[in-house]
Amino acid sequence: MADTYNIGIAGLGTVGVGVIDILNRHGDLLAKRAGRPVAVRAVSARDRHRDRGVDISGYDWCDDPVALARRDDLDLIVELIGGSDGPALALAQACLEGGRAFVTANKALMAYHGADLAVLADRMDAPLAYEAAVAGGIPVIKALKEGLAGNEISHISGILNGTCNYILTKMEEDRRDFGDVLAEAQQLGYAEADPTFDIDGHDSAHKAVILAMLAFHAVPAVDTAPVVGIRALDTVDIDYARELGYKIKLLGTARRTEDGIEVCVHPAMVPLDHALAGVRDATNAVMIQGDAVGETVYIGPGAGRGPTASAVVGDIIDIVRGHTSPALGRAAHDLPAMVPLDDAQRFANFYIRLRVNDAVGVVAEVAQLLSDADVSIDGLLQRGRAAKGGVYLVITTHATTEARAADVVAALDKLDNILEPPALLRIEA
Amino acid sequence: MADTYNIGIAGLGTVGVGVIDILNRHGDLLAKRAGRPVAVRAVSARDRHRDRGVDISGYDWCDDPVALARRDDLDLIVELIGGSDGPALALAQACLEGGRAFVTANKALMAYHGADLAVLADRMDAPLAYEAAVAGGIPVIKALKEGLAGNEISHISGILNGTCNYILTKMEEDRRDFGDVLAEAQQLGYAEADPTFDIDGHDSAHKAVILAMLAFHAVPAVDTAPVVGIRALDTVDIDYARELGYKIKLLGTARRTEDGIEVCVHPAMVPLDHALAGVRDATNAVMIQGDAVGETVYIGPGAGRGPTASAVVGDIIDIVRGHTSPALGRAAHDLPAMVPLDDAQRFANFYIRLRVNDAVGVVAEVAQLLSDADVSIDGLLQRGRAAKGGVYLVITTHATTEARAADVVAALDKLDNILEPPALLRIEA
Repeated sequence: MADTYNIGIAGLGTVGVGVIDILNRHGDLLAKRAGRPVAVRAVSARDRHRDRGVDISGYDWCDDPVALARRDDLDLIVELIGGSDGPALALAQACLEGGRAFVTANKALMAYHGADLAVLADRMDAPLAYEAAVAGGIPVIKALKEGLAGNEISHISGILNGTCNYILTKMEEDRRDFGDVLAEAQQLGYAEADPTFDIDGHDSAHKAVILAMLAFHAVPAVDTAPVVGIRALDTVDIDYARELGYKIKLLGTARRTEDGIEVCVHPAMVPLDHALAGVRDATNAVMIQGDAVGETVYIGPGAGRGPTASAVVGDIIDIVRGHTSPALGRAAHDLPAMVPLDDAQRFANFYIRLRVNDAVGVVAEVAQLLSDADVSIDGLLQRGRAAKGGVYLVITTHATTEARAADVVAALDKLDNILEPPALLRIEA
Repeated sequence: MADTYNIGIAGLGTVGVGVIDILNRHGDLLAKRAGRPVAVRAVSARDRHRDRGVDISGYDWCDDPVALARRDDLDLIVELIGGSDGPALALAQACLEGGRAFVTANKALMAYHGADLAVLADRMDAPLAYEAAVAGGIPVIKALKEGLAGNEISHISGILNGTCNYILTKMEEDRRDFGDVLAEAQQLGYAEADPTFDIDGHDSAHKAVILAMLAFHAVPAVDTAPVVGIRALDTVDIDYARELGYKIKLLGTARRTEDGIEVCVHPAMVPLDHALAGVRDATNAVMIQGDAVGETVYIGPGAGRGPTASAVVGDIIDIVRGHTSPALGRAAHDLPAMVPLDDAQRFANFYIRLRVNDAVGVVAEVAQLLSDADVSIDGLLQRGRAAKGGVYLVITTHATTEARAADVVAALDKLDNILEPPALLRIEA
């Protein structure tokens, strides 16, 4: 068997320890699969002496992670530091510039700098792999880049953030408010102390951007993608969703339209009989539509030590075996910038939920307003009274633009008979 | 860009035409993804002059498929002839012996000869790829061999035959008998004129064997795997399954147990909240459990022109890019033969459904028989009368062996109060 393949790991948090654990436990099995033994040789982290539950005394220690890239005895560097810039980016650049293989679980790094890093990787013929950056343990980057390489991709939609899906599941199944479930999730360690990045959709947006680059061979600007999180969701809408045959899921979406590529994140109504609707708790899932294959769906754990380490080790073994698929699925030097669609180019069916005065003529007033705005009503539901006063009026629309839907909601909000700001959600057909 | 990569295709049925169609339509896109243009140069099929809806006049024609393997101008051969032996096997051997890349959609070939072909491929350093052989367009071979390569796999279970899942879905949703639905499926072209191979589970068994080889690095004997199809399923059991919180699916299973590897096919009760339970019609799905990743599920079209061709083209692009993962996930020359478990080593929870005389003491008699056989009852359900006379009695058991369950059912069948042969199904926890 060939010589040992030596890796360096930058960042020894839960995932780094998970990678070391897999390499230790499955050394023989992985050597057979990879064709040669794989061993950690050097590590870098903030605190050398923290007890991590694994013995790192046999590895060389580097205080500076970027120093790992300068060591000639390392074949591959794993970056688990996190953050889109700073040491993670410096390490990635130094590593690839030196022609060395680079594996990362860092979605922010790949969302903001993936295209540039891919150009560098192509030029230096250095492998760049990032399976763990999207949907944790589910090998969806590989599916998109390799397994479905024969397809023109039309649509990707995914449950990409476990924290949000956990909160939505609890809100629905236990009929509890967002704030209540979030507080519990924070206590249990399922949500960060500052949950903004997850619940406001930014984490999902990073992942959607990475999937869009791979699927459409163009580079979206991360900060122009429309992103709506789950903070404003009301349990009443979750109840109505179920009544109408849907579940509400936070979806990261990348879709080819006549006008261009749409990349966005929003809570959406997913039909109950779709595989994404059945995905509960912190599980992630990605739906990919290709012109030859049709629709495929990938479901699994989206985060955590084992699943993320599984993806990192999968990347390592690929590279040890000599896999050489281009980082973004094709040469990256001439990828065009993606032009974001404006709201008048983004079409969907919508769910609008109003709390209105229980008075004669209100439904007619609302219907007239939609008609005047040229928004076609698909369904209308009024039943029971709202605990807060008035009654709920639920409207589903035929396809219209985000712009028109937003205008309609703004106009509705100004009516005297509307008692609180309307809820607006996309319906996924 | 590098020179054109030339492929030969043996077999121009629906999948072969699908492959040609993808290569024609997406030539530029695929060239960018693969790094060089990919073109069909030679083909072989039974009838040169049949109208296939694609123009094959630009390709060299070979009457003998094996002649493709002797052409120095071909870089890769795609085998779409079918059959475990005969020309498909001869072509595979000739191709790999010549060190040429070989891509196949042939599950029978891989189930019976995959291990030998992998040894040959390893020795000649010739790529051997067969993504299309299992679960059509879903890249599950790739997930297992590459994406989850960091895991010790414990359990794979899949809906691997679209015809069976279509029939089961119709039986359940339309409450129609097996024979009725089968006849309709044959008329619609969803089932073969001779459906034996599908509905009796042999097709699923071939695929389960391939997954088992990859997951467990051992070689099962195809013909010793216990295989039960869906022919004997009664709609009454589908109804009871739903009542108990399950759907009945035909599962191909490969599982690591204390005694060895279990490879089998059987209709089983799948909990309604599991992703496999929601898989309808001809869709396929595969669940894979690994020690690091946990459970992942892959869902998509399992057959048909586009999905199967998608998998074949994915394999082609992998090989053009220079991917070199070993055909069975590790060197194949020293893979052990899998020792089939006997029925006393195969454990499950069971569902037993009886039609019994509506008489005093019958339940006690049945319960006593199970107790004497040391089979522990988990649940018992008796309600309503059977249209055919008597009443239905449904028993679910705690874990016991296949042997003991079969003995119990044989003993029950001999009781005077049992009006028809009992139904016996596995329950998947």
